[in-house]
Amino acid sequence: MRKSKGEITRDYIIKTTRKILVAQGFHHTSINDIINATGVKKGNLYYYFAGKEDLSFSVLQDAKEEFFSFLEQSFQGDNPIDKIIHSCEAIFQEQQKQHFVGGCLFGNVALEMSDCNERFAAVIHEVFTTWTEKFARFLEEAAENTSLVSRVPPIQLAKTLVAVIEGGIMMARVSKSKADLEDCLSTLKIMLGR
Amino acid sequence: MRKSKGEITRDYIIKTTRKILVAQGFHHTSINDIINATGVKKGNLYYYFAGKEDLSFSVLQDAKEEFFSFLEQSFQGDNPIDKIIHSCEAIFQEQQKQHFVGGCLFGNVALEMSDCNERFAAVIHEVFTTWTEKFARFLEEAAENTSLVSRVPPIQLAKTLVAVIEGGIMMARVSKSKADLEDCLSTLKIMLGR
Repeated sequence: MRKSKGEITRDYIIKTTRKILVAQGFHHTSINDIINATGVKKGNLYYYFAGKEDLSFSVLQDAKEEFFSFLEQSFQGDNPIDKIIHSCEAIFQEQQKQHFVGGCLFGNVALEMSDCNERFAAVIHEVFTTWTEKFARFLEEAAENTSLVSRVPPIQLAKTLVAVIEGGIMMARVSKSKADLEDCLSTLKIMLGR
Repeated sequence: MRKSKGEITRDYIIKTTRKILVAQGFHHTSINDIINATGVKKGNLYYYFAGKEDLSFSVLQDAKEEFFSFLEQSFQGDNPIDKIIHSCEAIFQEQQKQHFVGGCLFGNVALEMSDCNERFAAVIHEVFTTWTEKFARFLEEAAENTSLVSRVPPIQLAKTLVAVIEGGIMMARVSKSKADLEDCLSTLKIMLGR
């Protein structure tokens, strides 16, 4: 079904605001920044969104849906372990494409907002939990008797993989060097018996 | 040597501002917030610090020195691997003490400031690099033929451990549950052959 003009405008505002939030964070972004970047009139913006919090929440929801699609597409390979590794590689490539600037929107919001905004924290929690569960399902399927996979409970190992990715993105963002993510990825592969 | 009155005031401003920066981040903290929290007059504040950026940089430097001391004290145990594990446990206990609120100042600043402030990024980079090197030195010393320690180059494994800790703190901050850090710690121990 074709999108209505209203839906197109709403989407455009969401995608443009996302770029600003990734670059500046929530607190450092004003409604005027969003108006300037989108070129949408203030009245029009408030027609679609109740305010900055509401718009940012929509950005987060939209990014979450996009990330879940990205994850599904990233699970490529002949066996469950290869699927996880390919997925981690795809995430790291995205970071490299953006030259380690901006990092992970969910990680950023996690650190900026999760102490002070329960709605935002709930979305990030859903992202981390779903991501962990997807990895854990593959780890359960993995019949291979590789060291860590056979010795660490799937959910626990999956959580650690997500922590390595988020921590690795953080380190790469500081160093602006691909070495940090490459090192983390190499260790992940060995953890998964590759 | 006893500190002068000026040094005591300067220290007090730094420690108090740190609490605000941990809670609110850099961009969301105003000079007025700092004046209100410290009770120090504006003129007095500007006597010690050129402005918010200068004061925040001093907070970061001070936190870095404190963290390096904390790390040294945390390396307890009979052998290098035990020292690393004890250190990770000590970091996680600090997070639990603060009920997973605030997270890691360095991680927070890494995500908020490293794209836009090179001076801040340089301090965080020093924290991550020094921390990694300290872990790597113990991994080199570890003569044990435990799976990951013998198969992953020390610097690479050390970097992954730091990533797990930072990522784990991020996840715990979102879930406000100790399970995330406990799971990461359990995996770390198995990674280190325990």
